Amino acid sequence: MTAYRDLERRTARIAAIGDALGILGWDTQTIMPEGSNDARAEQTATLSVLAHELATDPRVGDLLAEAENDASLDAWQRANLREMRRDYVHATAVPADLVEATSKAVSVCEMVWRSARANNDFAALLPSLTEVLARVREGAEAKGAALDLSPYDALLDEHDPGARAERIDVVFADLAEFLPGLIGRVLDKQAGEPAPVRPQGPFPVEAQKALGVRMMERMGFDFSRGRLDVSLHPFCGGATDDVRITTRYEEDNFANALMGVLHETGHALYEQGRPRAWLGQPVGQARGMAVHESQSLIMEMQASRSAEFLTWLAPVAREAFGGEGPAWEAANLRRLYSRVERGLIRVNADEVTYPAHVILRYRLEKAMVAGDLALADLPGAWNDGMAELVGVVPPDDRQGCLQDIHWPGGGWGYFPSYTLGAMTAAQLFDAARKADPEIVPALSRGAFAPLVAWLRQNVHGTGCFHASGDELLTAATGRPLDASVFKRHLETRYLG
Amino acid sequence: MTAYRDLERRTARIAAIGDALGILGWDTQTIMPEGSNDARAEQTATLSVLAHELATDPRVGDLLAEAENDASLDAWQRANLREMRRDYVHATAVPADLVEATSKAVSVCEMVWRSARANNDFAALLPSLTEVLARVREGAEAKGAALDLSPYDALLDEHDPGARAERIDVVFADLAEFLPGLIGRVLDKQAGEPAPVRPQGPFPVEAQKALGVRMMERMGFDFSRGRLDVSLHPFCGGATDDVRITTRYEEDNFANALMGVLHETGHALYEQGRPRAWLGQPVGQARGMAVHESQSLIMEMQASRSAEFLTWLAPVAREAFGGEGPAWEAANLRRLYSRVERGLIRVNADEVTYPAHVILRYRLEKAMVAGDLALADLPGAWNDGMAELVGVVPPDDRQGCLQDIHWPGGGWGYFPSYTLGAMTAAQLFDAARKADPEIVPALSRGAFAPLVAWLRQNVHGTGCFHASGDELLTAATGRPLDASVFKRHLETRYLG
Repeated sequence: MTAYRDLERRTARIAAIGDALGILGWDTQTIMPEGSNDARAEQTATLSVLAHELATDPRVGDLLAEAENDASLDAWQRANLREMRRDYVHATAVPADLVEATSKAVSVCEMVWRSARANNDFAALLPSLTEVLARVREGAEAKGAALDLSPYDALLDEHDPGARAERIDVVFADLAEFLPGLIGRVLDKQAGEPAPVRPQGPFPVEAQKALGVRMMERMGFDFSRGRLDVSLHPFCGGATDDVRITTRYEEDNFANALMGVLHETGHALYEQGRPRAWLGQPVGQARGMAVHESQSLIMEMQASRSAEFLTWLAPVAREAFGGEGPAWEAANLRRLYSRVERGLIRVNADEVTYPAHVILRYRLEKAMVAGDLALADLPGAWNDGMAELVGVVPPDDRQGCLQDIHWPGGGWGYFPSYTLGAMTAAQLFDAARKADPEIVPALSRGAFAPLVAWLRQNVHGTGCFHASGDELLTAATGRPLDASVFKRHLETRYLG
Repeated sequence: MTAYRDLERRTARIAAIGDALGILGWDTQTIMPEGSNDARAEQTATLSVLAHELATDPRVGDLLAEAENDASLDAWQRANLREMRRDYVHATAVPADLVEATSKAVSVCEMVWRSARANNDFAALLPSLTEVLARVREGAEAKGAALDLSPYDALLDEHDPGARAERIDVVFADLAEFLPGLIGRVLDKQAGEPAPVRPQGPFPVEAQKALGVRMMERMGFDFSRGRLDVSLHPFCGGATDDVRITTRYEEDNFANALMGVLHETGHALYEQGRPRAWLGQPVGQARGMAVHESQSLIMEMQASRSAEFLTWLAPVAREAFGGEGPAWEAANLRRLYSRVERGLIRVNADEVTYPAHVILRYRLEKAMVAGDLALADLPGAWNDGMAELVGVVPPDDRQGCLQDIHWPGGGWGYFPSYTLGAMTAAQLFDAARKADPEIVPALSRGAFAPLVAWLRQNVHGTGCFHASGDELLTAATGRPLDASVFKRHLETRYLG
């Protein structure tokens, strides 16, 4: 057991540095004075390098080999050891000078991207994006070699361990065949219905915040181990036992902040519900980005936009803002929050068209990493894909392939998790409501406790005990991910 | 130059970890959820250990020896190297197991102290305080051996490099002879004057904060590299280029928060004014705790409680709170903020009696470290000293030797810096006003710029270029510290 215990001490140390980085990251995005940027970058770079040095210490390789021959470990310890090995392979697969070259290329490219997007100038981005992609491909090949995976699978595996293009191809193909027709049918149906009316503000920030806090409390967010604050881009961050979510308030629209809070609270409940005995260990972490996204979407999309919950919410929100009139009727809010349109921008997309935006990016990024799509051809390929999948063509690259920071940020392999998360949320919610028939009726009383209890047991509390998202899903729902429940969910909600 | 450059890289790394700890420490005291305490302790312990490992890396000893033979270094680099050596000797002098034993003893003792103070039960504190003192003496002996200093001088040197009991004995003796008589004369004078009247509140927190921010701006605090927040115990913390001060607002008394803000802003100006080219290096740090305290006291006591500034402040504060009546007259505020009394509690003491409280602690702690005062005899010695120096005897230990956390926290050697700081502030202010005759008239217009410009040049910007506070003071004022200016200042303000 000695080798294993030594590894536990080392990973606990790395986790504590990660937690410190989590608090610094929160601080940077919420309250740091603007002139502190360089000093803060120095702090985070130093802590990141220290964590990397600890993670790649050659002694770790010896200890892993020793511990892997230790027959005395129990099932959680073995799962922990498996995750330690995984982290070690990922950390050591890419040479340090390539990590540094990639990080520098990304810094440059993200800066260029900001002005290229503002100026609708893809040509200006091309050189630095080419450099980033070259470094990312190099890293992906090195990781692929170490993990015995294709380069793109190696990138997927960083964000979502166990995710493989072969599986994603199947579920995304199913969805890609289904979505364009569904979008058409939903738009036809919407055209025959009264247009929903937006409740009129102003909605004072204090009242919005109070309503958000109330929803978080109902969802079981533990304010003694977390916070709600404000940032330009909402996120869920912080540290172990200190989970901090943020939102952004608009005085003329309370729904964006509220739905954002419900979304981030879903992430936060996952973090607050990780297995307490394993908090500082790899097996105590969340099981990849797709499952994480499923936890935000199960709260925001499956539960909070359900007819049952909106029926409860309508009078509560009306009272919170002293509103009156037909805009506050539950039926109107339901129509308002299930409005579908063929939009250009992913982050503004509705539940039905969002997966089409993601499938487009998945196809393109896979081709880029494989070398089958030259970056110079990206704008054209983007627009063709938008026409096919969403049914609308961007008038310019600013609203097309320049809209997301992911690729300039080196984030190939991340996009699929959004829609894998949405499908996972649907499949989990379906299993949950069958396992506990009280879950949906509770939502009509504004009560989340039955749903959260099921998630605690089947998702949050399992950490990384399962080797992949698909294994977790199989344990929780009886089968790996497929698109069927998600498709049915969309049909029921948008055509029912 | 290679060895020196290598050392610079290492110290920059340690400084970045220190900065991260500074932000975490600020967070802990201001906004951290209470349930995050254990996880935060884990983060700070991990970062502290990492910093300590870097500081005590045996390779540093070799590099120091090599760099000390490097004739190519300029004066600042040599000063930097001197500080590196100092830090290395301090960090390596005490064996790791003694550091850990001390830290554990302190944790226990601080907890015991909280209830012992509440229960007025010195006997309950005695065992754990005995343990802490034993460990502190052991550490002081080890450091003393490494630094060729007496144990108590080694403790002084931690907080205030270059401070020595031999020198402090002289200036404190001078003061101790002077103070009891002065206190009596001041009280006699006060008795013959109209009692000052406290302006009546309530003083809304928002108005107090706005006034505090306005004063900070006038003093030159750079809000693009710092913040003002709220905490239970006010402090100046944060990190390089991110200096964060805190205060605590009372609705029925605006002066405590305001004077606190002026005090902490003095500390903050020192931090924000450190030499920019050397920020992450030892020579770029503040020159010890006595000089640091002098910067808060020069702002709070020398400048802001001057008749000139209070004459300007009186109508400004009255308008800020919409006050009226004789309580807001400058003469009344001057009497109010220079009120002297024979009090029992150091942190509530006025400018005249505060040094008496400190001299008492200095005498006692020196005797404890030397083994000349048994802890069991502390309450009696305390009360005798209070009678002699302040002229009042505590009715119980809660208001006597149990009032401060310093000794339970292992902080022998820290107390003198409060009064050394007050004397340093007086000597610096006197030199400044002679060097720039505009400084005092500017205060009567609420303008701090001339004073701050002199401090930037003679204190803040010199970092640790000078080897000790006394050397800094000699460069700035023409001579090392003595009590004469401070005594004259007290006589002028309180008897003039």
